[in-house]
Amino acid sequence: MKILGIEHIGLAVNAIKNDAPFWKHIMNIPHRNTELVDDQGVITDIYDTGKGKVELLEPTAKNTTVGKFLDKRGPGVHHVCFEVDDINNAIRELKESNIHIISDEPSIGAEGYKVVFIHPKSTGGVLVELAQKT
Amino acid sequence: MKILGIEHIGLAVNAIKNDAPFWKHIMNIPHRNTELVDDQGVITDIYDTGKGKVELLEPTAKNTTVGKFLDKRGPGVHHVCFEVDDINNAIRELKESNIHIISDEPSIGAEGYKVVFIHPKSTGGVLVELAQKT
Repeated sequence: MKILGIEHIGLAVNAIKNDAPFWKHIMNIPHRNTELVDDQGVITDIYDTGKGKVELLEPTAKNTTVGKFLDKRGPGVHHVCFEVDDINNAIRELKESNIHIISDEPSIGAEGYKVVFIHPKSTGGVLVELAQKT
Repeated sequence: MKILGIEHIGLAVNAIKNDAPFWKHIMNIPHRNTELVDDQGVITDIYDTGKGKVELLEPTAKNTTVGKFLDKRGPGVHHVCFEVDDINNAIRELKESNIHIISDEPSIGAEGYKVVFIHPKSTGGVLVELAQKT
């Protein structure tokens, strides 16, 4: 597979309104947009360095992936996303190598990207997202 | 401060030799170098996507920052590093904003960068490194 770069890091937060000021005013990273990703049960607040984004992820309910993560681990890095040129090809290669992917088909993530997640047990402890720009 | 991009993500691992194959052969990210950073008590194994690096961090002993992290949290994302244009200016701004930085002076990190760390309690749960290329 061809990795084009780190697309973003996803940070689990309890409340965007409390965490946004650090990224916006201290780190001074330009705000790009705020978006509800209903499928994943999160509101994403996106900051773009121009070379990799920071996405703050606030769960819409306790019983969501990010809600459960916050309960178990507290706020912090939830996943790291890499941009790929061809996500279907990436999925095929991962399956051939017996890598544990969370879904066999890409879903639609923030900003309309086609995305798939690789389970932390296949990566050495980090939830890895692959994303193809559409 | 001026953030130039995500420089790398640092992943705490128990043994580089066990984790390297995923990043090298599955993710297919070019290997850049392997380096002992004696000050920080880690061996770093660096992969470069061209837009953000992945650094595997293996502690040289139990009683090191990364060794203690592994004991407490297990393997996973240890820190996220952002490149800045001027680290002394960044440190001055952070101090003026009462952000908790781990050292008042930059130290020398992997690849000779001047680096400083921001405590997770000031960032919403993630250890943030700032690095200036030298």
